[in-house]
Amino acid sequence: MKNIIAFFIVLGLFQPVFSQDIEDSLFVRNIFNEALDSYVAYNQLIQLCTIAPGRLAGTDECAIAQDFMYNEMKAMPFDTVYKQPVWVRKWLQNGEETAYFDIGDGQKQYLAVDALGGSVATPEDGIETEIVVVKTMDELQTLGREKIEGKIVFFDFDMNQHNIYTFSSYGENVGMRVYGADEASKYGAVAVLVRSLTLAQDTFPHTGIMRYKTGSKKIPGIGISAIHSDLLAQSYVENPHLKVYLHCACKEYPGVKQYNIIGEIKGSKYPNRIISIGGHIDAWFNTQGANDDGGGCIQSLEVARLFFALNYKPENTIRIVMFLDEEMAQRGARAYADNPINEGEQHYFALESDRGVTYPTGFSFDGSDAFVKKMQSWASIFEPYGLHRFEKAGSGVDVSFLKVKGCALAALVTESQRYFDFHHSANDTWKQVNRREMQMGSAAMTALIYLVDKYGLY
Amino acid sequence: MKNIIAFFIVLGLFQPVFSQDIEDSLFVRNIFNEALDSYVAYNQLIQLCTIAPGRLAGTDECAIAQDFMYNEMKAMPFDTVYKQPVWVRKWLQNGEETAYFDIGDGQKQYLAVDALGGSVATPEDGIETEIVVVKTMDELQTLGREKIEGKIVFFDFDMNQHNIYTFSSYGENVGMRVYGADEASKYGAVAVLVRSLTLAQDTFPHTGIMRYKTGSKKIPGIGISAIHSDLLAQSYVENPHLKVYLHCACKEYPGVKQYNIIGEIKGSKYPNRIISIGGHIDAWFNTQGANDDGGGCIQSLEVARLFFALNYKPENTIRIVMFLDEEMAQRGARAYADNPINEGEQHYFALESDRGVTYPTGFSFDGSDAFVKKMQSWASIFEPYGLHRFEKAGSGVDVSFLKVKGCALAALVTESQRYFDFHHSANDTWKQVNRREMQMGSAAMTALIYLVDKYGLY
Repeated sequence: MKNIIAFFIVLGLFQPVFSQDIEDSLFVRNIFNEALDSYVAYNQLIQLCTIAPGRLAGTDECAIAQDFMYNEMKAMPFDTVYKQPVWVRKWLQNGEETAYFDIGDGQKQYLAVDALGGSVATPEDGIETEIVVVKTMDELQTLGREKIEGKIVFFDFDMNQHNIYTFSSYGENVGMRVYGADEASKYGAVAVLVRSLTLAQDTFPHTGIMRYKTGSKKIPGIGISAIHSDLLAQSYVENPHLKVYLHCACKEYPGVKQYNIIGEIKGSKYPNRIISIGGHIDAWFNTQGANDDGGGCIQSLEVARLFFALNYKPENTIRIVMFLDEEMAQRGARAYADNPINEGEQHYFALESDRGVTYPTGFSFDGSDAFVKKMQSWASIFEPYGLHRFEKAGSGVDVSFLKVKGCALAALVTESQRYFDFHHSANDTWKQVNRREMQMGSAAMTALIYLVDKYGLY
Repeated sequence: MKNIIAFFIVLGLFQPVFSQDIEDSLFVRNIFNEALDSYVAYNQLIQLCTIAPGRLAGTDECAIAQDFMYNEMKAMPFDTVYKQPVWVRKWLQNGEETAYFDIGDGQKQYLAVDALGGSVATPEDGIETEIVVVKTMDELQTLGREKIEGKIVFFDFDMNQHNIYTFSSYGENVGMRVYGADEASKYGAVAVLVRSLTLAQDTFPHTGIMRYKTGSKKIPGIGISAIHSDLLAQSYVENPHLKVYLHCACKEYPGVKQYNIIGEIKGSKYPNRIISIGGHIDAWFNTQGANDDGGGCIQSLEVARLFFALNYKPENTIRIVMFLDEEMAQRGARAYADNPINEGEQHYFALESDRGVTYPTGFSFDGSDAFVKKMQSWASIFEPYGLHRFEKAGSGVDVSFLKVKGCALAALVTESQRYFDFHHSANDTWKQVNRREMQMGSAAMTALIYLVDKYGLY
């Protein structure tokens, strides 16, 4: 026997942890079993979606969501539950938007629209003027002030169906939603309509952040559903002098103080080493925010519940963080990174779930090569559960602020075909979430945290 | 250069097909692009589900579905479209079932139930009697005739939430649905209630085939939703003398002639070598049959559409087969295997899609080791699309009848967490199908058929 071990040592193949490997695999199996048996997390998601839809940072609905998460955490055996103050913008939709064009005989074709996040209002009696259709930001310059001034610019881009990872298609066009109004305003546009960033054909208008950054006149930005985008584009071909009526009443108010909600389990061996797991508690005004990101919040909380249920005592300090204000300005994530909760705390590892709670396919890791290599060495433990992608790539918006603190980052990656059917729209309801798919993600996150806690990052 | 090649040849690593590999990868990429761009298949699925729900073999609805598929195929450039006659059983639900128990003061607690497929009817005025609850078939023997005679046996088994591949949980309990009535009858039971084979908690009753095989008295078999199963089980704990009322009017009629619908593209090089791709056109009386198996039928048809769209001319004969009667007795699959359509035809390869049209995770292969090894050698071509499981395992019910003909078999494997939320229930609607997920499966099937057609099986 000794000779055989010596032989493997020579080859560099010997790992003196055979029984350890089995113990880890069994513990991970227990994590998945407990997650798949349980309805706790799914019922929490249903409650969150039902009692606090439209919980944009700064709103009363968001305060309800924060109270809910705080009370859920207080009912669990966390060592401490914190409410970390965060000053946030307060922007409200202020009632439903209206958009239509005349189709003759006094009949109106109404369009399904939503204000973009952060938009200014239209004048009180709305805007009614001709439109001009563009597919890219560059076309604004080509058309010039002559063809744009006084009109509504309609960004009717093609969403790329070919990307298998659908976030890539989102990334290719999201700039028109964020900066389209600001750019169009330079050429005298009076408002913009922006096609919904979805790969589906439906009547749900999608919203999302827009920004005024250049100091040009602030004009309203309004999202329009995919089906109504096609309808409007076709009607424009038939009548290039088509006039569209738009009205929205959204408005910015003075900022308010709200909270990151944080549950902490003190580490038994490295109390100053912080492992953060989180999602964002805020969601757009037009949605229950089940996939974005109620589900990610609940999965994060479930990591702690699973540790408690399986009686696992972490060596590092574990924090479950409900980040505030991801959608508007990430004030919660900035506050969490900038303001230590305890003296001497060191952000060691942070895991985010904010890509929808469909079936998990793996993790992305953001950090040193040694870190990524260590994470990838655990891939076989996850293989029985269908997680097969352990890649070096970006992590998530909220945890990214911890990077400058030397924190290693990770994100749960989920199957993305369905995600933009829901994203930032009224279609993002808890009924679109499958309990087992969400819990496969919860369990995978818990297993990763268990391994990091036990074996470290390198 | 020569030396390097010689070196690799010595190592057995040289493959003189570098550019061929690239060509294949590009063609597969084109298949996926075309599939993801297109709404043809998804719209076909919506039509099939809408015009022919409840299309159990032998029914008028099934005839409508067959006509629909035939007409769709005739509108495509197939060389030949066949209607292959099949004699099938005709069993009808004959109106909704009723089940309730009294909760006092003349109030009734109604239960969501569905007849099991092939069940006999209750007497015209129903059955009202006490129940006895069992979790396994073995408990029947333990209880014995004394405790069962004259009662309704309620099979209230635990579905195993721990299996990651949920078909395993189905397999563990489906025997009680299929043979429970037959077994319970031996002990004098007058009917059986069978818990829905689902991993979700909802009020959809699930049906599925049941069989009378031993010659014991035929008694009705009725499926009951998961939530109502829990309610009934709890009520039984509170009152062991609880009486349940059951009524169903289902009935077996003389058999009728219907059809397998088959579209054929004649092979340019091996016209007698048949590659079959299929799903089953029939679906239970209580469902649109979107995942089971309208989606699999449409994915199979989409393989041909993609070949036509990309102008691919197969060397082998390709047949798209809409198998009849998978749910009741597989008469369609038997007819297809037993009755050659053309003289001298050799069943070379058959691929089935009947595991739901959620995201594809890979294929299972049923055949010789050399065949499986060849299939696995292509895995890297599918890796960019998330298909990562190329396993030797069983294929599908319909193609399995071709095995004795020496045919190599395969099945598309899809992510299974959601599948039993839909299976054999009113919840299996086209709205539960995501176009992109379904089309990822269509494209994967097409890519596999392309590779088999081009390079053969070994």
